[in-house]
Amino acid sequence: MPGLTQGIHRGRMLRPEHLAVIDGERSFTWNRFADRVARLAGAFQSHGLTHGGRVLLLALNSHRSLECFYAAMWAGGVIVPLNHRLSRGQLAAQVADCAPDLIVLGEDFAAMATDLRAGVDSVRSVVQAGDGTAPVGMASYESALADARPVPDAGRSGDDLACLLYTSGTTSAAKGVMLSHTNFIANTANTVSELGLSEQTVHLHHGPLFHVAAAARLFSVTHAAGCHVFLPRFVAADVIAEIERSGITHATFVPTMFRAMLDDQALAGSTLPSLQVISYGSAPMPEALLDEMMRALPGARFVQSYGMTELSPVVTMLGWRDHLPERRASGVLRSAGRPVLFARVAVFGPDDQPLAAGEAGEIVARGPNVMQGYWNRPALTAEALRNGWMHTGDIGYFDSAGYLYVVDRLKDMIISGGENVYSQEVENVLSLHSAVSQCAVLGLPHPHWGESVHAVVTLKAGAATTPEALIAHCRERIAHYKCPRSIEIRELPMPLSGANKILKSTLRDEHLARTPSPT
Amino acid sequence: MPGLTQGIHRGRMLRPEHLAVIDGERSFTWNRFADRVARLAGAFQSHGLTHGGRVLLLALNSHRSLECFYAAMWAGGVIVPLNHRLSRGQLAAQVADCAPDLIVLGEDFAAMATDLRAGVDSVRSVVQAGDGTAPVGMASYESALADARPVPDAGRSGDDLACLLYTSGTTSAAKGVMLSHTNFIANTANTVSELGLSEQTVHLHHGPLFHVAAAARLFSVTHAAGCHVFLPRFVAADVIAEIERSGITHATFVPTMFRAMLDDQALAGSTLPSLQVISYGSAPMPEALLDEMMRALPGARFVQSYGMTELSPVVTMLGWRDHLPERRASGVLRSAGRPVLFARVAVFGPDDQPLAAGEAGEIVARGPNVMQGYWNRPALTAEALRNGWMHTGDIGYFDSAGYLYVVDRLKDMIISGGENVYSQEVENVLSLHSAVSQCAVLGLPHPHWGESVHAVVTLKAGAATTPEALIAHCRERIAHYKCPRSIEIRELPMPLSGANKILKSTLRDEHLARTPSPT
Repeated sequence: MPGLTQGIHRGRMLRPEHLAVIDGERSFTWNRFADRVARLAGAFQSHGLTHGGRVLLLALNSHRSLECFYAAMWAGGVIVPLNHRLSRGQLAAQVADCAPDLIVLGEDFAAMATDLRAGVDSVRSVVQAGDGTAPVGMASYESALADARPVPDAGRSGDDLACLLYTSGTTSAAKGVMLSHTNFIANTANTVSELGLSEQTVHLHHGPLFHVAAAARLFSVTHAAGCHVFLPRFVAADVIAEIERSGITHATFVPTMFRAMLDDQALAGSTLPSLQVISYGSAPMPEALLDEMMRALPGARFVQSYGMTELSPVVTMLGWRDHLPERRASGVLRSAGRPVLFARVAVFGPDDQPLAAGEAGEIVARGPNVMQGYWNRPALTAEALRNGWMHTGDIGYFDSAGYLYVVDRLKDMIISGGENVYSQEVENVLSLHSAVSQCAVLGLPHPHWGESVHAVVTLKAGAATTPEALIAHCRERIAHYKCPRSIEIRELPMPLSGANKILKSTLRDEHLARTPSPT
Repeated sequence: MPGLTQGIHRGRMLRPEHLAVIDGERSFTWNRFADRVARLAGAFQSHGLTHGGRVLLLALNSHRSLECFYAAMWAGGVIVPLNHRLSRGQLAAQVADCAPDLIVLGEDFAAMATDLRAGVDSVRSVVQAGDGTAPVGMASYESALADARPVPDAGRSGDDLACLLYTSGTTSAAKGVMLSHTNFIANTANTVSELGLSEQTVHLHHGPLFHVAAAARLFSVTHAAGCHVFLPRFVAADVIAEIERSGITHATFVPTMFRAMLDDQALAGSTLPSLQVISYGSAPMPEALLDEMMRALPGARFVQSYGMTELSPVVTMLGWRDHLPERRASGVLRSAGRPVLFARVAVFGPDDQPLAAGEAGEIVARGPNVMQGYWNRPALTAEALRNGWMHTGDIGYFDSAGYLYVVDRLKDMIISGGENVYSQEVENVLSLHSAVSQCAVLGLPHPHWGESVHAVVTLKAGAATTPEALIAHCRERIAHYKCPRSIEIRELPMPLSGANKILKSTLRDEHLARTPSPT
């Protein structure tokens, strides 16, 4: 398969004088975008980027982030976008792990340069991606680009590494997921038809580009010769205004963004008719929220994606037809959809053998979208990719028509009295209680049952309830053995990972630290 | 990338009890289709198919042809569909060239068994694909399938050879084009979005499966989990009736089929509303004919494809949006469209360097859809694929928006007085004359001009004209140097290749044989 930069050559060929990029008041045609990438690649090389070397990027979304992604590859290197929500210690560990040749920092992060490069001998230069003059010791992005000569595309492709993405890891140190050109090309091939991406597409990127979903979408939109529109981050009112201003046709949201948009006054005045396709995923979508969003945007088609960083990322999609009212009764809206064109997805039992439809086990996948491995972690790689299948750590089952239902993370499943209890099912039931804001269900060691079901709950402002009332609420709705045997109502906020997921391991440790062992 | 048989696994997973195949009164669900393929693969193995061995197929279109394609690959082999329009001598040469393990003959071709296998030691068995009892010395398809146990999918993929397709070659002996699993998977990835193939697709296959366009479409429809509908051959009334009977959503036609359908009374009574997408290609499409077809089928989107066997086959497409009335003035309807997602297409000069937009040269392509080579022809392969680009032998140019205009075959271009004359341009002008039925323009050796432009013309029944009148007709429309200096009005039918193309080399030889050299 071709490399990702081929998308730029194609875009320039098909749409030379059409817009490739819009970012606030700035915009660039395909010709100008391609020229800037070729020059930035030259600047990267002259500032010390070697063949196969890493360009580390820490920035909010902008046209410069997009240019860095492509210039790193164009110059023969690898882009490593870091999560700016992480602590300095976490970021420094990732810099040391990937040993970049170059560091590019957005203006908001320039002050971290010294900390990040401390003790990392590989770094040749630090570039500040902004408009102003760079601080001492850093190169200025625009000056470097203006001074550079455009260089030829290095033509990386196939299994060449394109991108190193650190997964935040709720249980262990972050791992660098190695994704190749073919990995992302396969994701484009797997999704472009269902998403309806084409040169008519005007795609809003508001999600952070260090997340695989946003990064992969950059590549797909480029390859389809669509137009990229950037917002630095998700702010509901800004998103709504940009959709109207730029005639956005495609965007991706997670459930909390749906809520924020619906709660914004700006949405009351418009159905945002330019929107053609809205994709969503990354977290379970409450059906009522989806309904509300579909009513608010009657002209848009809704498509759900399921996957993970190690899968570049999409392996199943729930297409827009499955969102139509006549499909509602089938229950498929609660599924993650069905395998995309060129990925194989299966459900394996503990013996790594496929299970029949209806039987829950670990979701596994294989295909050209499966990662090359974890950076510098051969043992973890071998474990995750055993027998050629990527083991997702998610539990799910297929129905008889190939719809995948994800029920829990493997590590979050509780085994109590020999029965499997899926923490997400219990959390879904707890969430229905009017007083509950957030909840986490986890297993505690238990001498008789093996594990017992425990819940930690935070309440909505002004609401009140008791553990007993919540347990009674659960018993009315799910089997007795699935109901929490103990519930903690927590005053503090939930501990969150860098990706804003509740850290159940921290909750468990805290609980065990202050509770005498039952044995 | 996955192998082509993965499409069957996916179809069976997504649509187990929906129809995969319709052929007259017969139909098969995905479960049954997959079971028949696995059994037929077992039968092929027990009848002598070795790993990587060839299964030669000579048959009209039917569900059995589809099964043979997939069973050959499922069993670890290669399918070689031959052109039943060729002479016995031509067919025998191809059998000897590919040295198959098995020969499968449709009922109409069973009598050729002895001729075809004569002297070809590799052949272990001959199977008759039909309902009746097989002749002595041949196995019966249905009995063999019923007796066989389903075997596991051999899992061929990547660069493994999937299909050997003989190009009929108007100038030389037929060549076996080696197409791999990845080649056809890439073609699916390149075309599925523009064609809108999905599990909702009901695709009519009436075109011969030994042609790459039809073979590649089999694979794409399977991968999309669509439904295959077969007719043994193109008959306009049958095609129209089948579209109505089976609710066909997708079909492919060449220009002469458009004419035949429009001339059929059955089309006057219906707009065939089930049709969503009509693809066309393989020969220049007169704009008036396309217009007429679009008016007759107002509910269908029209998509043009350009490519060749060696490219699996599609490298450019003219999308349905470019067929809309508002795009008409742009002239893009006369183009072959623009490069598909994952193929690179360029125009090279005689020095194999890229030309600028507007400059005509040889069309070249590279990408995962480019063939593995010509079977047993390393020198021809090296010549065609020099520098990694497939040299198509077609002349064309790109406009400034990436639309490719194909002007002639390289070997048909005439160089007269240092000027390039594209035979197709002259033929297009001659065709506009009301008396002309068919025409061929070619170069004759000329002592002063290098070549002189010569035309051979057949007239419509009852029509009359003179060479002088035709030359005057041309001079009114194109530059003087492009106009024929001599015209032969031919009484006999044009000599045709196996693919029904006019054999200009034969016309040239005939002319030179009866004309004294001008020197």
